[in-house]
Amino acid sequence: MTEKTRVAILGASGYTGAELVRFLVHHPKVSIVALSANRKAGQTMGSVFPHLAPYDLPVLTSIDEVDFAGVDFVFCALPHGTTQALVRSLLEGPHGGRLRIADLSADFRLTDAADYETWYGHPHQAPELQEEAVYGLVERNRQAIRSARLVAVPGCYPTSALLPLWPLLEAGVVEADPLIVDSKSGASGGGRDPKEGMLHCEVSEGVYAYGIGSHRHGPEIDQELSLAAGRPVRVTFTPHLMPMNRGILSTIYARLKDGVCMADARKVLEDRYRDEAFVHVVPEGTLVHTRHVRGSNLALIGLHEDRTPGRVIVTCVEDNLVKGASGQAIQNMNVMLGFEETTGIAQAPMFP
Amino acid sequence: MTEKTRVAILGASGYTGAELVRFLVHHPKVSIVALSANRKAGQTMGSVFPHLAPYDLPVLTSIDEVDFAGVDFVFCALPHGTTQALVRSLLEGPHGGRLRIADLSADFRLTDAADYETWYGHPHQAPELQEEAVYGLVERNRQAIRSARLVAVPGCYPTSALLPLWPLLEAGVVEADPLIVDSKSGASGGGRDPKEGMLHCEVSEGVYAYGIGSHRHGPEIDQELSLAAGRPVRVTFTPHLMPMNRGILSTIYARLKDGVCMADARKVLEDRYRDEAFVHVVPEGTLVHTRHVRGSNLALIGLHEDRTPGRVIVTCVEDNLVKGASGQAIQNMNVMLGFEETTGIAQAPMFP
Amino acid sequence: MTEKTRVAILGASGYTGAELVRFLVHHPKVSIVALSANRKAGQTMGSVFPHLAPYDLPVLTSIDEVDFAGVDFVFCALPHGTTQALVRSLLEGPHGGRLRIADLSADFRLTDAADYETWYGHPHQAPELQEEAVYGLVERNRQAIRSARLVAVPGCYPTSALLPLWPLLEAGVVEADPLIVDSKSGASGGGRDPKEGMLHCEVSEGVYAYGIGSHRHGPEIDQELSLAAGRPVRVTFTPHLMPMNRGILSTIYARLKDGVCMADARKVLEDRYRDEAFVHVVPEGTLVHTRHVRGSNLALIGLHEDRTPGRVIVTCVEDNLVKGASGQAIQNMNVMLGFEETTGIAQAPMFP
Amino acid sequence: MTEKTRVAILGASGYTGAELVRFLVHHPKVSIVALSANRKAGQTMGSVFPHLAPYDLPVLTSIDEVDFAGVDFVFCALPHGTTQALVRSLLEGPHGGRLRIADLSADFRLTDAADYETWYGHPHQAPELQEEAVYGLVERNRQAIRSARLVAVPGCYPTSALLPLWPLLEAGVVEADPLIVDSKSGASGGGRDPKEGMLHCEVSEGVYAYGIGSHRHGPEIDQELSLAAGRPVRVTFTPHLMPMNRGILSTIYARLKDGVCMADARKVLEDRYRDEAFVHVVPEGTLVHTRHVRGSNLALIGLHEDRTPGRVIVTCVEDNLVKGASGQAIQNMNVMLGFEETTGIAQAPMFP
Repeated sequence: MTEKTRVAILGASGYTGAELVRFLVHHPKVSIVALSANRKAGQTMGSVFPHLAPYDLPVLTSIDEVDFAGVDFVFCALPHGTTQALVRSLLEGPHGGRLRIADLSADFRLTDAADYETWYGHPHQAPELQEEAVYGLVERNRQAIRSARLVAVPGCYPTSALLPLWPLLEAGVVEADPLIVDSKSGASGGGRDPKEGMLHCEVSEGVYAYGIGSHRHGPEIDQELSLAAGRPVRVTFTPHLMPMNRGILSTIYARLKDGVCMADARKVLEDRYRDEAFVHVVPEGTLVHTRHVRGSNLALIGLHEDRTPGRVIVTCVEDNLVKGASGQAIQNMNVMLGFEETTGIAQAPMFP
Repeated sequence: MTEKTRVAILGASGYTGAELVRFLVHHPKVSIVALSANRKAGQTMGSVFPHLAPYDLPVLTSIDEVDFAGVDFVFCALPHGTTQALVRSLLEGPHGGRLRIADLSADFRLTDAADYETWYGHPHQAPELQEEAVYGLVERNRQAIRSARLVAVPGCYPTSALLPLWPLLEAGVVEADPLIVDSKSGASGGGRDPKEGMLHCEVSEGVYAYGIGSHRHGPEIDQELSLAAGRPVRVTFTPHLMPMNRGILSTIYARLKDGVCMADARKVLEDRYRDEAFVHVVPEGTLVHTRHVRGSNLALIGLHEDRTPGRVIVTCVEDNLVKGASGQAIQNMNVMLGFEETTGIAQAPMFP
Repeated sequence: MTEKTRVAILGASGYTGAELVRFLVHHPKVSIVALSANRKAGQTMGSVFPHLAPYDLPVLTSIDEVDFAGVDFVFCALPHGTTQALVRSLLEGPHGGRLRIADLSADFRLTDAADYETWYGHPHQAPELQEEAVYGLVERNRQAIRSARLVAVPGCYPTSALLPLWPLLEAGVVEADPLIVDSKSGASGGGRDPKEGMLHCEVSEGVYAYGIGSHRHGPEIDQELSLAAGRPVRVTFTPHLMPMNRGILSTIYARLKDGVCMADARKVLEDRYRDEAFVHVVPEGTLVHTRHVRGSNLALIGLHEDRTPGRVIVTCVEDNLVKGASGQAIQNMNVMLGFEETTGIAQAPMFP
Repeated sequence: MTEKTRVAILGASGYTGAELVRFLVHHPKVSIVALSANRKAGQTMGSVFPHLAPYDLPVLTSIDEVDFAGVDFVFCALPHGTTQALVRSLLEGPHGGRLRIADLSADFRLTDAADYETWYGHPHQAPELQEEAVYGLVERNRQAIRSARLVAVPGCYPTSALLPLWPLLEAGVVEADPLIVDSKSGASGGGRDPKEGMLHCEVSEGVYAYGIGSHRHGPEIDQELSLAAGRPVRVTFTPHLMPMNRGILSTIYARLKDGVCMADARKVLEDRYRDEAFVHVVPEGTLVHTRHVRGSNLALIGLHEDRTPGRVIVTCVEDNLVKGASGQAIQNMNVMLGFEETTGIAQAPMFP
């Protein structure tokens, strides 16, 4: 019997950390050997997340206490900005030759140092790794991910925008401008830190748009779509907070290029995703709901014609904590380590 | 002491009917004399809507049983398509000279008979009234409403799109094309008829877009914006169902005309609504939530600049059952009957 | 025209503070002259509670900045434990002869100093006022409230337990032991302070019991029921957190005394509440929902027979922020100041 | 390689049917060969439950069309009352010698024909099978289940009451009277048939008690507790509808027998469930939430002391669709067929 890959999860006390654990406790190829959470060091995972109490898990430690000599793979689920120096120290440290890392923060998603500084307000502390990191949209970058040391797991919103848009732009069936991405997310995207605006009374029974015209996921979408289109793309992106826990729906407004019809656009997406396990294009006339993917690593894409000829409305749903974060991170790990890509993340959606 | 206006509510067993009652039981100038609900005739309002049980209300009857000789004002809250013949019979009947009507259905919103037939699938049965009816967006058509016999209360979605857009188009500060209206609505908009898709398990914890590119509120918005712009306008309109009961948020994407800046657009809206009781433009940088208007007749408008110069994002929130239906209907009645416009509908929003 | 009563709300930045404002802005007899919130002093109420932005309200100040020379009536909506010294200083200060106070905290609810110390962990700082304060369950203590300087507004849970139980115990139709009160509350009872356990993701889509066997509202219920029964009563009380914002349902298990039948118990409650504006006993066979009182000052009581003869199940619903807090506080003020008891709090429930 | 067990799900268009599929598509020992839903015959499972569209499943048929020659195991997830004749015909038919059945309806839960008729309003149509059927509370009846042809899967509410109560009664540590079971359930227990009372607007943001003193799950609980106690037991049982999709919490009020202390009661439960995979007793001071078991086959039991000595409050949570229905049904199947008991139902809870 082969030995299991030894996995550490840094930042295990957040929702994405818990979600990694939810999948990995049943992943047949890995073993969780370390869980860090600086502010909750010394506590059990079961006390921090009682739904995980039934599982035999390492006690939470500070990052400093993790013995990376016994770790093969690291999931970083730390707040933005705190990962850069840490990842460098890991990769340049004594175990750097062996360690491979999937980072769920935004720290390595933007490849351009100036862009990073503009949007995150401080210079990047490991710009050479920023260049090296592979953007972990598996369906697009699978080849590069296989050999990557460091994968930047895409943001939750960008994943839902990129999955439908990059094939359409790469194939040249839609115009690169204007592109409007109107995204709706559940509250788990806001994390577990207590904030007045995330209280139940403030989130339930209401919706609002935030970060209008200025959200950091905008430039992340731009970067990847620019690569796909072969020209600079700047989307209009508006996130909204929904009164629900999980799920992102992006409603995307685009224009078909002259001479292109809806069937052409549909064919591009269907061809692109026909053999993918986690991304499905739904049949014409079918509506996609976030509840149809809840708890699973699936993304569903719908394609719709507007009343106005030439305008197309694309819808894409995912579970923001799974395909938009932890599930996609494990999908990346599976690719990086040569496992079957669906291992441990093949669970069916949970409805209702 | 002046006698009170005698009000009948036809279709009182739906959510908009109940909402009319909620306000009217405390309206000092009117008295509810008849409540109809054909399928629930004979039942008390308190058995159909227990939250109204404390109030002394007429028993539900069929429409045929309503004695219009004792009625001054009629609210029609009937399903689309069932109102046309009824309204004609009322206005042409023995009490037609006295009766005034606010219709909450879609039957008299489209002024063009051909448009109506296209979108509603059958010829209009009272086309002369279709022309006569005044579109009851009070802030725009107050003058015509004063003397109207028949007011078509605007749809819930159109209200949230028109309040910000018609002043901007009329003033010529934004382009009439493209205009994208991405709207999010609570479930009460779906009515009280039992449908699988509206069950709690099907609505909570998820979102989806429906009627994509083909919802009937699209042409209603077009009609009114075309009047404002002085040219044909066709919006791209996508409604979404939110896991909440009340509230609509419309996120609107437009372009400033050449030479126009954000401040110009803001000034247009602020000037237009400065003296309005129910429509407020929030200060720059402020986000509008549906929960800030819940239960009230208020609409809030936010104006935001995109990263891309010249693109503007407008947000508008309302309570779909109040400003988007029953509250606006009473506002119309107040104007038609010469009452102070806020009478009976000045309640503060309920949060949380 | 009579001058309006000048009202100060201390602790206006919590949900009960906002709820007081929601009602008082339309109360015809009072004028809000001061709003305090130490940590948010200097902010406008509209920035703290955007749903109140449309109203012309005093800017938030610290308590020290309130000029009580211009205040007639004070609502204290401060955290438990912080009110005692303040209320004493107000009543013993230069304006003490005029000021009247409704305190929404738990500080003056328990009349026994030892009980207070046991349950709240520190000696009471104004024990003489603890004795003087009238327990503001208006339907029971209306007479004493009329002339009270200081009213202790009942707790949200106790209100829902006491309204049905005290008449039954006073009339001697149910046994005083055992009494089991299983209460379910919405999340607004947890306040607006950011706590992990009150985040949307932690509250929605789940329920739990807390404070089992040890919640502070237990002794408050005991105290009042002991008075009603004329003997010491100790209830078993379990509060539960519901995934909703507003509403409390208490399901109460009791035994009829020998020789008493259900009709007797029903008659006691019906007779007791026949003339009350805010407390209604629903007909036999009718179920009470929290949603039937949402946003209103109503409480509904249902009475049900168990399969096992002699056992009775009583249900009582209220809106925890209204009849369970701010609405009841205003009801007390109306009684204290000789206003019609329903003034300003007669709003119909909001459903859905 | 062994052949897989061929499974049919009758009544696959309800929530419990879908939930069986969710687990069984990843169960390594079985293959779904037939799905019936009379009213939706001819449709694909993916059109009825889009979250299952990614799976290769049989098209829905009427029951008559199922070829039981190719079926080894049957899950009946049909409405109450419709299963009796069908099960008899299956067990007495040509394949009766091979077929084994887990019935999720209430049809075979009550073993007494008279009781059944009293509570379900008509004579049982297969009383001999009523006697033969094994009550499928695996943790209690594992031995009998192994060889059963027909298992009656316990009701959702009874499961949550019985798991903690039967060991306590069997061990004689709590009194058999009075026992009060106050249960709170999510809306999925109400099924997928469109009913006004189950609409989102009617369920969200409110709670209520129903079936007070008269719910059919009362006698089911009585039957099993009477067996455990060795004397007739009649509980007071009140179900409540919660504004959430999944989960049941039962709060149970009991009395310790004279001479028994809390530690004794705790020891009984801990000993009983120490080796169980799906039932856990949480440590003293820990609260159980329905969200800690959501989506999983787990049940958690908490034990709490009241302020009044001798009174104990027991809490038990489960996911009503999993341990309360489909998960427990599969657990029964695993036992009946000699599979490892956790096969296919070991998924971790999903939080948030």
